[in-house]
Amino acid sequence: MKWGRIELEGHAVDVRLEGGEVVGHGGRRFPLAGTKLLPPVIPGNFYAAGLNFRAHVEWANAHSGSSYKVPAQADIGYRSNNALIGSGAEIVIPADSTGPVHYEGELVAVIGKRARDLSEANALDCVAGYTLGNDVSERAWQKSDRTLWRAKNSDTFKPMGPWIADGLDPMNQVIDVRVNGKTVSRYNTGGMIFGVAHYLARMSRYMTLHPGDVVWFGCDGPTVPALQAGDLVEMENSAIGVLANRVVREAPA
Amino acid sequence: MKWGRIELEGHAVDVRLEGGEVVGHGGRRFPLAGTKLLPPVIPGNFYAAGLNFRAHVEWANAHSGSSYKVPAQADIGYRSNNALIGSGAEIVIPADSTGPVHYEGELVAVIGKRARDLSEANALDCVAGYTLGNDVSERAWQKSDRTLWRAKNSDTFKPMGPWIADGLDPMNQVIDVRVNGKTVSRYNTGGMIFGVAHYLARMSRYMTLHPGDVVWFGCDGPTVPALQAGDLVEMENSAIGVLANRVVREAPA
Repeated sequence: MKWGRIELEGHAVDVRLEGGEVVGHGGRRFPLAGTKLLPPVIPGNFYAAGLNFRAHVEWANAHSGSSYKVPAQADIGYRSNNALIGSGAEIVIPADSTGPVHYEGELVAVIGKRARDLSEANALDCVAGYTLGNDVSERAWQKSDRTLWRAKNSDTFKPMGPWIADGLDPMNQVIDVRVNGKTVSRYNTGGMIFGVAHYLARMSRYMTLHPGDVVWFGCDGPTVPALQAGDLVEMENSAIGVLANRVVREAPA
Repeated sequence: MKWGRIELEGHAVDVRLEGGEVVGHGGRRFPLAGTKLLPPVIPGNFYAAGLNFRAHVEWANAHSGSSYKVPAQADIGYRSNNALIGSGAEIVIPADSTGPVHYEGELVAVIGKRARDLSEANALDCVAGYTLGNDVSERAWQKSDRTLWRAKNSDTFKPMGPWIADGLDPMNQVIDVRVNGKTVSRYNTGGMIFGVAHYLARMSRYMTLHPGDVVWFGCDGPTVPALQAGDLVEMENSAIGVLANRVVREAPA
């Protein structure tokens, strides 16, 4: 099953996807074409693994002067809801951004059940389904600022969607990232340093997981070329669909 | 005016405080005594300034082996909703915590209006009111982990409340912190490195502020003695009230 949210007459409406049609509560049906997709969920807690693929850590250190270590334990980080947009909405590069802006194509787990003290064996039972996230990152601010606030959480920097899909193995998903139709990154989630079940079990030792919480699991490999105004950036997974966003640049004040 | 939330028959209810009574929508009244307070708001975005008082930075460096710099610019950080509790609820130290657990008494701004690109001159207009936060921190995990996840965001580590109060000057508030009735810290918010208006204006240059978002503004001075099971930790401000929480230790698994 696939589900998410659309905007209808100015309101967010929960829907499911059925054979090319969008179906709301009570069976109301709309054609998918022309539908404005919203982020499929607005989380109560917005978690992100950050560095979770060895090749991405090595690439970042080689290409950006950073000195990230391969994490020795699964420490979860945070992103913020203000930055969320759905598939089809524009990524806006702030007018005063000086650094390259990169995509990062990630698998996202959406929590379905309240959970605490999960074991790795049962951790995936609390997941309702999976979606895709683009962890858009302004690399100059990522270096200059004390936190990741505007580097990772400027408005529109967290495209998520298009749909939440269930029934898939999170440790064997191919994520294909395209810029202007050309594949720039393609990897299998099986390369995670810490897998989905390990992260959820460890997090739930200290933190209650709540329905609607999301966990972004990091990206593999390089994240170039840098995004330019006019670019179309897409992430695709065969079970989830295509998360597609056009890039624009904010006009100077 | 003061307002917040209570738990009533298992549900969260928005209320205001009037002359020792709690008043719900429709004028329903309850005695304050015996009322279970909830965090006065569950934010859509949970921001925290972190290091925002010079004496606290110097104290942390002298006493914990850290080497924090006095921040050169107002970079906002994040906390997570899973950790929120109201006044009267228990702070639970995880069974496997090895480090000291410290309180940090902070002023919290609660956003009332959607806002973007604020100037410092008009920034405070978007604030509905102010409350208190206790940024409970496990210092060993704060050093060992890559992020602040369990150091700052273990369940129950973010007491907030008791009420939201309006009509106060955020840059001239005394916050008095007591452990078991004895004052351990007392400071004026006027000592912030970056003031409330400066932070909000700078944040809103990149991020839309939304009604219900909260911004915690950091604490001044030392944060000792470390909290022990059985301790009562209270933060008081004359306009907002007293945020009081008892400390317990989780039983070993």
